[in-house]
Amino acid sequence: MISPELLRRYPYFAGISNQSLKEIAMIAEEKHVPAGTRMFGEGDPANHFFIISKGEVNIDYLLGSGEIRTVDTLVDGDLLVWSALIEPYKTTAIGTATKACELYSINGPRLRELCEKDPLLGYRLTSQVAKMLAHRLEGARVQLAAVD
Amino acid sequence: MISPELLRRYPYFAGISNQSLKEIAMIAEEKHVPAGTRMFGEGDPANHFFIISKGEVNIDYLLGSGEIRTVDTLVDGDLLVWSALIEPYKTTAIGTATKACELYSINGPRLRELCEKDPLLGYRLTSQVAKMLAHRLEGARVQLAAVD
Repeated sequence: MISPELLRRYPYFAGISNQSLKEIAMIAEEKHVPAGTRMFGEGDPANHFFIISKGEVNIDYLLGSGEIRTVDTLVDGDLLVWSALIEPYKTTAIGTATKACELYSINGPRLRELCEKDPLLGYRLTSQVAKMLAHRLEGARVQLAAVD
Repeated sequence: MISPELLRRYPYFAGISNQSLKEIAMIAEEKHVPAGTRMFGEGDPANHFFIISKGEVNIDYLLGSGEIRTVDTLVDGDLLVWSALIEPYKTTAIGTATKACELYSINGPRLRELCEKDPLLGYRLTSQVAKMLAHRLEGARVQLAAVD
């Protein structure tokens, strides 16, 4: 487990009860990932939800041509593996640590249970996920516009 | 206002209290949109959140080349104008009714207040929005792959 105090500094946990933060902390652990590590591929079971405490992770698509296209770069404070919260709970891109990362790794199925038990937590996290997806979609659109 | 019973049939309202459904119904109205109507453009204030009761709406991007690219087609039961729930509450695409539509139009700012008051409602709606965005992102990726 990690200290609940580590979670409190993130804006998406604003207003979340001490009790819920404690329960998240209990299903979380610190994880170190060396630079260059491929953390997940496309279609993997999204069993863990991550908070990037420090580091950088590229989100890449493998295009039909075999080209790798970076669609997002996540940094300190960003959420990683949104698909651990959204059905069908499978990753949809490739995640690679481009710098050494310190992460909080949270058990996905148990976090989903906590979201059901404390819907404010679910609301805050899925709102943050939706914002991130909207940002990524905007990036995809810019790329689409560029190739036309 | 509309009848709260009309809302109950949608899966994203599963488990939402009668009281909350009644409050949504009170800030909603039925709206008819003729086929061919451009409902919103890019960057409009997202003041209304819609449920498509019946009909079809295309979500289009205007590319740099001037080409219009359809990125999603929404049908009966789908949510429309997700950006009414997610900061900065501005539309990001063009929405055009491609068939005559019967919609429930819900006041956006007041719906956000209801989501804060009843976080389960917020959680259900933002989860549905995140699913929709993930689907749209997948579509964008397929299009990116096709042009490369």
